[in-house]
Amino acid sequence: MTAQEKLTKKNNEQKVICVGLDSDLNKIPSHLKSSESPILEFNKSIIESTYKFAAAYKVNFAFYEKDGAEGFELIEKTIRLIPDDILIIADAKRGDIGNTSQMYASAVYDYFKCDAVTIHPYMGSDSVNPFLENKGKINFILALTSNKGANDFEKLRLEDGSFLFQNVIKKVKEWNKNKNCGIVFGATQIEELSENVKLFGDLPVLLPGIGAQGGSLEDVIKVFKTNNRLNILINSSRGIIYKDISNKFTESAKNEIIRLNEIVKNTLKL
Amino acid sequence: MTAQEKLTKKNNEQKVICVGLDSDLNKIPSHLKSSESPILEFNKSIIESTYKFAAAYKVNFAFYEKDGAEGFELIEKTIRLIPDDILIIADAKRGDIGNTSQMYASAVYDYFKCDAVTIHPYMGSDSVNPFLENKGKINFILALTSNKGANDFEKLRLEDGSFLFQNVIKKVKEWNKNKNCGIVFGATQIEELSENVKLFGDLPVLLPGIGAQGGSLEDVIKVFKTNNRLNILINSSRGIIYKDISNKFTESAKNEIIRLNEIVKNTLKL
Repeated sequence: MTAQEKLTKKNNEQKVICVGLDSDLNKIPSHLKSSESPILEFNKSIIESTYKFAAAYKVNFAFYEKDGAEGFELIEKTIRLIPDDILIIADAKRGDIGNTSQMYASAVYDYFKCDAVTIHPYMGSDSVNPFLENKGKINFILALTSNKGANDFEKLRLEDGSFLFQNVIKKVKEWNKNKNCGIVFGATQIEELSENVKLFGDLPVLLPGIGAQGGSLEDVIKVFKTNNRLNILINSSRGIIYKDISNKFTESAKNEIIRLNEIVKNTLKL
Repeated sequence: MTAQEKLTKKNNEQKVICVGLDSDLNKIPSHLKSSESPILEFNKSIIESTYKFAAAYKVNFAFYEKDGAEGFELIEKTIRLIPDDILIIADAKRGDIGNTSQMYASAVYDYFKCDAVTIHPYMGSDSVNPFLENKGKINFILALTSNKGANDFEKLRLEDGSFLFQNVIKKVKEWNKNKNCGIVFGATQIEELSENVKLFGDLPVLLPGIGAQGGSLEDVIKVFKTNNRLNILINSSRGIIYKDISNKFTESAKNEIIRLNEIVKNTLKL
């Protein structure tokens, strides 16, 4: 199955929630810390308890890289635990000159066998192209991010009055020859989302920022419903995986994603 | 020694060349391929033959990440081979929301013990801040890169008529409270370099793009000499490490960096 097919299948079941595996030894339940590989044990428990309800998993590479080679091994082992029909996003925020981006693309697609990746647009088309050569994947390019710093550059006005992030979205649509581009758009940016959703065309959209970052799931769903489209993934990391750090964390994570799925269903019904 | 002290010491000796370790199994001398760890053997030979002449080494993370955990181990082992008084740049082009950038900063500074890193500015101040909390390091933020794609966004004109990359440079100067910021400016962008060098203030500058990418070392040095400053690193990767892929590659790499150092000295004398 291509990444787009996986996404469409889940969206057709009204599943849009992407579970972010921002797994941190300092935050996982303490009873796991005595196990041989606490983070792997944690990820395994989270995946087993949520996969029936999840539309995708997002592996935040930074949380693993900080432990060097051991962390990279954990990414590999975690990815193997995710069922085949669920999209896996390498949230790696990469991007460099062509021959280097080639290697980054090889890392996430050939080595780690992910379905999708997040990419920085700053260096332009030839920094993104090596990713786009991978058909059947989804390359989520940063447009407007969920953090305050989005105001520094992403929301700068260009000479034609448009915002930089709008220009990025336009370019992404031009780059979408292989139908394997998507964008990242912060769920915290709800006004901008309403105003720009038509500009997205049919691009798949990854929306981080609900939960710990303050974005409203209901508001995001309403925008897409009003525009008669889904093709979206709404990420929650801390809100699901650290919902509860007692012995019952798997039950709590499961209940939380079920609760989010209910909000989605109810909002789509409105 | 802080990263800035290492850089200043080398620049005072008229050394500005940064050796880029873009080490690729498909490109290294074939006689090394039978060794137990060909890339490590290659890096060791390159470092041993060039360290007396180099101002810095730049480890291009992508070239190692493509081999997963094994690649990350190679980064670690390579870094241990570099003498203490030479700056080590993690060319990783990272940048994410705050709590994630914190982890990326921890990877390059705490785990890999690099002196410097390259960072994407797109997500703004809070994506860069966790790196800037590391005093004594140099955080090289992408301003104008050496590739063609630099035209897509970096050279877009803002409503006040300035270029996006100029706005990035201004922000970097504001962010430089801990005197640990620098910028990346492509050596291929010689006209823009002349026109903007005054805007840099005293920020350290990492200039990629001489050699394989076509930038002229002499032209770059002239610009900084005219402006009475150095505080620069000029990177050459393929031009040094793959100068020759015969049995004599170490001799050729050494001769090439000596040749580049001569150009620097002669140009500074003009």
